[in-house]
Amino acid sequence: MDGMSVPIMGPPDDALRVHWEGRRQAVLDELTSFLRIPSVSADPACREQVRAAAEWVAERLRRAGPVTVRVAETAGHPVVCGSSLGAAGAPTILVYGHYDVQAPDPLDRWTSPPFEPEVRDGRLYGRGASDDKGPMLVPIEVAEAFFATRGALPLNVRFLFEGEEEIGSPSLESFVAEHAGELAADYALSADGAMWRIDEPSVIVGSRGLVAMEVEVRGPAKDLHSGRHGGAVQNPLHALVDLLASLHHADGRVAVAGFYDRVVESRAERNAIAALGFDDEAYRREVGVPALFGEPGYGTLERQWTRPTLELNGLGGGYQGEGGKTVIPSAAAAKISCRLVPDQRPEEVSRLVARHLEEHAPTGVEVRVRTRPGGASAYRIHGDHPGLAIGRQVLRRLYGREPASVLIGGTLPVSEIFSRVLGIDTVYFSFSTADEDFHAPNEFFRVSRLWDGLAGWSDFWLRAGGTR
Amino acid sequence: MDGMSVPIMGPPDDALRVHWEGRRQAVLDELTSFLRIPSVSADPACREQVRAAAEWVAERLRRAGPVTVRVAETAGHPVVCGSSLGAAGAPTILVYGHYDVQAPDPLDRWTSPPFEPEVRDGRLYGRGASDDKGPMLVPIEVAEAFFATRGALPLNVRFLFEGEEEIGSPSLESFVAEHAGELAADYALSADGAMWRIDEPSVIVGSRGLVAMEVEVRGPAKDLHSGRHGGAVQNPLHALVDLLASLHHADGRVAVAGFYDRVVESRAERNAIAALGFDDEAYRREVGVPALFGEPGYGTLERQWTRPTLELNGLGGGYQGEGGKTVIPSAAAAKISCRLVPDQRPEEVSRLVARHLEEHAPTGVEVRVRTRPGGASAYRIHGDHPGLAIGRQVLRRLYGREPASVLIGGTLPVSEIFSRVLGIDTVYFSFSTADEDFHAPNEFFRVSRLWDGLAGWSDFWLRAGGTR
Repeated sequence: MDGMSVPIMGPPDDALRVHWEGRRQAVLDELTSFLRIPSVSADPACREQVRAAAEWVAERLRRAGPVTVRVAETAGHPVVCGSSLGAAGAPTILVYGHYDVQAPDPLDRWTSPPFEPEVRDGRLYGRGASDDKGPMLVPIEVAEAFFATRGALPLNVRFLFEGEEEIGSPSLESFVAEHAGELAADYALSADGAMWRIDEPSVIVGSRGLVAMEVEVRGPAKDLHSGRHGGAVQNPLHALVDLLASLHHADGRVAVAGFYDRVVESRAERNAIAALGFDDEAYRREVGVPALFGEPGYGTLERQWTRPTLELNGLGGGYQGEGGKTVIPSAAAAKISCRLVPDQRPEEVSRLVARHLEEHAPTGVEVRVRTRPGGASAYRIHGDHPGLAIGRQVLRRLYGREPASVLIGGTLPVSEIFSRVLGIDTVYFSFSTADEDFHAPNEFFRVSRLWDGLAGWSDFWLRAGGTR
Repeated sequence: MDGMSVPIMGPPDDALRVHWEGRRQAVLDELTSFLRIPSVSADPACREQVRAAAEWVAERLRRAGPVTVRVAETAGHPVVCGSSLGAAGAPTILVYGHYDVQAPDPLDRWTSPPFEPEVRDGRLYGRGASDDKGPMLVPIEVAEAFFATRGALPLNVRFLFEGEEEIGSPSLESFVAEHAGELAADYALSADGAMWRIDEPSVIVGSRGLVAMEVEVRGPAKDLHSGRHGGAVQNPLHALVDLLASLHHADGRVAVAGFYDRVVESRAERNAIAALGFDDEAYRREVGVPALFGEPGYGTLERQWTRPTLELNGLGGGYQGEGGKTVIPSAAAAKISCRLVPDQRPEEVSRLVARHLEEHAPTGVEVRVRTRPGGASAYRIHGDHPGLAIGRQVLRRLYGREPASVLIGGTLPVSEIFSRVLGIDTVYFSFSTADEDFHAPNEFFRVSRLWDGLAGWSDFWLRAGGTR
């Protein structure tokens, strides 16, 4: 099983089907050569490789047909822009994807090396295969196929491929703001954003927002010997655990005054989530915990999708090496992030949390709170958005069943930026799946999903262009 | 002021005084060459230098006179043993000191390099000058002086200089147990253990014990994305801070059931401590905290000396680098140490703490507790111990005032080992002072204290030998 024997099901017309049947090995070869480039955006040593990946994308897009392409500089890694705007009267979509990848560590847990792609059992293994090089190659192949079979695209397409998604897209907002005209579209169609399960097609209808903070507790001017001084001064580690423990009630609810004040509950969302069904025991086994735990009164999916959180992401102070050291450290610190839901505001939530931390500061230490830049509100796309409706039609035709509407517990900064800066919604339309170990060793992309993606995206473009 | 112009006050007879007046520069030169050896016991790269320091000590001791000397191997760094047992009918003392030193980091904060000793303003700066190379050279010089001026020592002396004090004396207990006969003495006289203040002579009458533990909280099988999973599983960092916060009441008292049950309060000690007097505000400024904090109902010295503590020494989990990472870590851990007072037992206290941690384990995680080997009980020397009485007489004569009796908030494993294994007490008789920045940059030893040490130790030996 190398994925080559799986028929390409569902291209919207015979010409496209024949085109791809003839290009199967070529498509896999293209993706393989793309995956060989270690475009790890977080690693300064990969800087030139990230640029090489941008150049690869630009070259591939130019080869697809008469697309205007450029590699645009940012403060960080470059952006690849392209456009084909010849479909007079048809809508314009902004195709989004990213060519950078996560770091491959830990290397010793990969069965085949992360940058030497290998097909096993119908899965293409390699860093970036699923997130997002496989999915983002799809619209480029689709554009090429339309040019090859029809000489033109069925709608107007702008392309925007960034190289910093895995590090939080730090340059994207200013780039989008400075090139808003060049990126104008009716909506964005994202090749990033996985479907939630392999056995059930899904569309993403929203995500949680994010605000991140750091808190530091400072005590003695320098580290003290815990034998000589222990008992006579406040230990910053004691102060920190007291302070952080005060952020939650014992049952898991956030104890920050006002935290839930703006949270709106959608009866429709609760009903839709209840209708999805969820196997708590299977999930418990999957994550490997002795028991699930969360806010009383809500199911697991609600806790992940529709309820705000305040999570500690890191914590440190004193001696953490082997053995022991009898020290009272001069300081200790923690990293906090809150996932936000409609209608919480990042600035307001961080203010409430900071006030709580300052008001609960233990005796004998100083508490410093900092909010990290780059907060994002929760995102929702309206249920009857025309792009979302098309996505549903395509998936229904392709998989023979009604796609689920799912929310994302994480944050999609891209849709938040497109919404806020360009005033457009984002339709997520990736054919990767959440189980494909992106961000982990042995990332893979199902080869059959590559063919589904070609069929799905070409069908989407035809329907969106009004020619089907 | 180089310390050379300070007269050597108080040697017990003229012959000794004349001997040292003629050896002043020689004694400083000896100490300087000893300090030049970077015998950092914690640093594997210094292994040969630690051995070189042991050889230096053995050679210096042989040069002192007819002393039987050997460098004895242990599982770690060697021990230097010596004996001169020709004083028939006189008591036998076990002289203790250590030739290893703390690591000199941070190097950039030293005014002169740590292993290039330099005298400035009557202080000899260098790593180990105060802890413990300066003080431990004193009994060797004293032995040499007695041999030179009288041809014999006034009492029987065994020497034991170890090279692992700064790493917790891991090899000492088994060495002492295996060589108990060779180390037999009426009591130990330690050249380690600083006086508490420069302006007030003091003797050490006891120390707190120690038991150290580690606690780990384990949640998901691997790190989870806090966006996708946040809210649906117990975050090990939340569980850890809850668990650790439960160890203390808000007022600073330890909340572990039974923790204080065996603690005996000594009215005499409380009175003695009250009589010492203590400037809280000066101490607060010295350690640099906004306010002092500790167990209600006790003063600062009582909190440091006579009350048990449960201190967190380290804490860590999740992401601690620059910026943020939206992770729910699979585990988090903390290091705990308890300082014990009479009559707490290390094994019992660690059992109580472990039971507390297990009983307070939050939902959705597993709690693992481990006690580190090497616990020690608190130590007290009886107020009318003959060696302690001699120490007091010597200090009274030398400084013209009654020495203070002080406790040590830290733990003195050596006295605990000598007491438990050899059945003897330890009289601390060092002429270093707690303010001499041992374990910190710019460690120094006051040159005048080197001369005081020679006078004091020779006086001690004469009195203990019954010849004065």
